[in-house]
Amino acid sequence: MSEKLILVTNDDGYAAKGLRAAVEIARQFGRVIAIAPEVTQSGMSQAITMYKPLFLKKQHEEPGVEIYSFSGTPVDCVKMAFDYLLADRRVDLVISGINHGSNAAINVLYSGTMGAAIEGSFYGCPSIGLSLIDHDLNADFDAAVQYGTQIVKQVLTQQIELPLCLNVNFPIARPEQIQGIRICRQTRGYWREEFYRREDPNHRPYFWLTGEFINHEPEAEDTDEWALKHNYVAVVPVQVDLTDYRRMDMLHRILPE
Amino acid sequence: MSEKLILVTNDDGYAAKGLRAAVEIARQFGRVIAIAPEVTQSGMSQAITMYKPLFLKKQHEEPGVEIYSFSGTPVDCVKMAFDYLLADRRVDLVISGINHGSNAAINVLYSGTMGAAIEGSFYGCPSIGLSLIDHDLNADFDAAVQYGTQIVKQVLTQQIELPLCLNVNFPIARPEQIQGIRICRQTRGYWREEFYRREDPNHRPYFWLTGEFINHEPEAEDTDEWALKHNYVAVVPVQVDLTDYRRMDMLHRILPE
Repeated sequence: MSEKLILVTNDDGYAAKGLRAAVEIARQFGRVIAIAPEVTQSGMSQAITMYKPLFLKKQHEEPGVEIYSFSGTPVDCVKMAFDYLLADRRVDLVISGINHGSNAAINVLYSGTMGAAIEGSFYGCPSIGLSLIDHDLNADFDAAVQYGTQIVKQVLTQQIELPLCLNVNFPIARPEQIQGIRICRQTRGYWREEFYRREDPNHRPYFWLTGEFINHEPEAEDTDEWALKHNYVAVVPVQVDLTDYRRMDMLHRILPE
Repeated sequence: MSEKLILVTNDDGYAAKGLRAAVEIARQFGRVIAIAPEVTQSGMSQAITMYKPLFLKKQHEEPGVEIYSFSGTPVDCVKMAFDYLLADRRVDLVISGINHGSNAAINVLYSGTMGAAIEGSFYGCPSIGLSLIDHDLNADFDAAVQYGTQIVKQVLTQQIELPLCLNVNFPIARPEQIQGIRICRQTRGYWREEFYRREDPNHRPYFWLTGEFINHEPEAEDTDEWALKHNYVAVVPVQVDLTDYRRMDMLHRILPE
């Protein structure tokens, strides 16, 4: 295999342990350029920065690996990489992650990791979001690195039609406990929030957002939530046409031209 | 029609002209509670605020209308409304907008307006994002209010299966120039960015993000971009299962369990 160029990003910030785990996967296959947010950008979805300037800084360099921080969102990082930093170079793959926390089910919509992975798939190369369903800063990434390497190798060596974007989630497990890889669909379900109300010293109320995921189909064996619960690596192929084609006829009826 | 309760939000902030236009539409059908970001949140997508507390403030009250600001993202506003402020009340409709700027095509992914509209559709009522493809702070909302009213009326009076989320975009036109309403699909295309590089007084480089939308199918008459270009109101039904079912077989082949 000729040397590849792999772009790594994440939403937990350039210093996160999960970014090092993604770099560890990527460097087995070629040169690595990582450009990741300066500070945590969890829950930033596909957000872009429209009204402030963004700062870029090289944070680390070692043979075959360069790591930059960028003061924007995960999607800003991907745009900066493709449209400026690497604008004259061919990128073979984008890896976003490894995220500290699940991006299965509806989390794919809120996830900065998946925002960046989706954005990466717009630039003519495959793009993979990797997430470990463990928020711990010192989470054990061994199984994620092992299975992530396997998935990345397949994507880099097989002929695959583009665009390709994968949402890969790893269960909390040691490598030997993993049951295998499952191709899944996104689980149906939503978050319901609970706001913690407090008051500041001037009696202004403020709120902390906290919530719980409601799985609408916990028994569905073809979903990513089911796979993770049963110690499988869950792989969901992702696309970005949000059109709900099933509602077209109804709309033609209620909104005649 | 019995009195309805309509939640209004946006991404341009509670003081935007477009929010008043959305309130003007909504108040024809019932009581209006608006809760919108304190400051502009354009491009915030489906982002949520995970690591800081959020401040809620009542900004305005008049018969049948209350307007609150919330210091988070558009999605935070919707969650605050349903899970706290209106938690014990039945909401009949969510209107997000009227946005100053287009949310057609791939913009639906980056849009804070549509992030909020999508979030609204998770709470058991129809949800409509309204956008005028004019960034001007003093944009002319007359046609948007007229056609928006017509769409809202249909959604409130017809029997419609939930969830329902609509992405409605209005062309820049006077009401009499509008050709009608078209049910469309999301146009395929992407943004390509150009970063303006400058240096601060300490010679640190910084960047402004700016870009151009590349329409991959400008001639496709069933797309939202085509409709807008031809002075139609474009209505795209939106759903949130991002699973790319067409790639399942390929993935089963390259990633055997």
